[in-house]
Amino acid sequence: MTSIARTAPLALSLALAAATAAAAAATPAKPAAKGRTLQQILDASQPSDWRALDPRNTIYLELERGRAVIELAPQFAPEHVANIRALAHNGYWNGLSVNRSQDNYVVQWGDPEEDAAKRKPLGPGAKDKLPAEFARKSAGLKMTVLPDTDGWAKQAGFVDGFPAARDSATGSSWLAHCYGTVGAGRDMAADSSNGSELYVVIGQSPRHLDRNITTVGRVVQGMELLSVLPRGTGALGFYEKPSERAPIVSIALAADLPEAQRAKLEVLRTDTPLFAELVEARRNRRDDWYLQPAGHINLCNMPLPVREKKG
Amino acid sequence: MTSIARTAPLALSLALAAATAAAAAATPAKPAAKGRTLQQILDASQPSDWRALDPRNTIYLELERGRAVIELAPQFAPEHVANIRALAHNGYWNGLSVNRSQDNYVVQWGDPEEDAAKRKPLGPGAKDKLPAEFARKSAGLKMTVLPDTDGWAKQAGFVDGFPAARDSATGSSWLAHCYGTVGAGRDMAADSSNGSELYVVIGQSPRHLDRNITTVGRVVQGMELLSVLPRGTGALGFYEKPSERAPIVSIALAADLPEAQRAKLEVLRTDTPLFAELVEARRNRRDDWYLQPAGHINLCNMPLPVREKKG
Repeated sequence: MTSIARTAPLALSLALAAATAAAAAATPAKPAAKGRTLQQILDASQPSDWRALDPRNTIYLELERGRAVIELAPQFAPEHVANIRALAHNGYWNGLSVNRSQDNYVVQWGDPEEDAAKRKPLGPGAKDKLPAEFARKSAGLKMTVLPDTDGWAKQAGFVDGFPAARDSATGSSWLAHCYGTVGAGRDMAADSSNGSELYVVIGQSPRHLDRNITTVGRVVQGMELLSVLPRGTGALGFYEKPSERAPIVSIALAADLPEAQRAKLEVLRTDTPLFAELVEARRNRRDDWYLQPAGHINLCNMPLPVREKKG
Repeated sequence: MTSIARTAPLALSLALAAATAAAAAATPAKPAAKGRTLQQILDASQPSDWRALDPRNTIYLELERGRAVIELAPQFAPEHVANIRALAHNGYWNGLSVNRSQDNYVVQWGDPEEDAAKRKPLGPGAKDKLPAEFARKSAGLKMTVLPDTDGWAKQAGFVDGFPAARDSATGSSWLAHCYGTVGAGRDMAADSSNGSELYVVIGQSPRHLDRNITTVGRVVQGMELLSVLPRGTGALGFYEKPSERAPIVSIALAADLPEAQRAKLEVLRTDTPLFAELVEARRNRRDDWYLQPAGHINLCNMPLPVREKKG
């Protein structure tokens, strides 16, 4: 630890980062006259403000240093998610590796073999070819729309906890590329991804990728295992030597594991009054440290609290 | 290396990332019918499109694994930059450490000593107390304004290569918090920073910090040395054990070093027609891979090319 003096400036981020554990144990705090702070809001959350991850939509990426938990979004990419479930069930990624780490952009994993003919078979139930799932009809999706302009899209907000955007003119919605968003690498052809090669955003949100590639979910816990991987020195951040690649111990679907091996995680719901209050407190911070409230929130500056499930 | 197939999707980022070396050696490329790509524009750049870093405004942060180059912005924070020059001249940071690494937020360095009375003396010419330099008058600054809405500020663009924002109502301008922006940690009091404790943004742009803290410059080269530092497990990402801290070998002002030890770097100018073309090509990508041009660019999605100076 170091002095409080020079650490306080950036203290606010603690509120959401530490929500993982802190929110679970907290007691309701007294609201400040100017509105509750992020931490106070989380501390006052009720069990109904949280939802458990669905084991059918959760995969565990096991690296040598630990587990990253990824929530899949079948409502946005049903075909890719079905394929990812099959690939995980088949143990497809076990023994493969993280092959790319490009600074301020993405970390990517899959089969490093260049020759398509020599790549690992996908196994039973997994398809080699899928349709592109860049966007879908907005009908049937409930979005908590953020109050500020997005710039990249006409509207932006959260759908079932995923950062998303939509266009009322075309009636379509899509998962947005924010820090932690997971997508399926593709070649020049729009329909050339099948979910076997995945990437995660580790830098400034590359929103220009939106609607150009299939996004399949987001990392809910363990981003710090992926974001610190040494950057590759080859083109696009690919590792030049096989020995530089980070081995994937396994990727498993939570539903395929016995309950004792599953992460007991809850994530904050995004369709509640509490979440709306959190958005407002993030638009205009109430912590005393802030002298100039922003009066604005960007989709990718709204990370979602995660916590261990009680009991 | 891995297959082109699944790597192509994110290939565009190469254009700017690889500009470091590639742009120097290139020959002008034929413009495509729909406009030149990012790489083609850079390849066609002339020597006058680049500027050399000023050694009086450049510091080298030497870590055990290499050097990060930081460009200082005296036009935004003259008092802090003067202090940082004095601190570097005094060898103040030599033997101190990186004490904090918080995922998707900041990496921070300085004196880890909690007790202010026991901290390392700043040395001759360095002041313990400075005024806050959160923003300055816009008069005298030439901004290349980006065409799209920013959200966080009325206008955003580049001033002398630094991402910046301004407000015509108040007539003030400030350096924006983007990936790589360097700022001076402070306590609760606005004027409690002196530049001895510095942080760099390693994640999604925390623009809510704008005008709440003094920003002093940006990392021009070597971000990947800082962004991969293991995240601290203490509050705010501070390392809990002293052994986890990354030692700072030295921080030196380029002007204090013999010419042979200085990095020969040039950065792309942001006040040229070439830069305007680059902005437009980034708003609407011309690479064949893109099916849906964004029609938008965000200030922090516009990284600046850097290259080794020829000759």
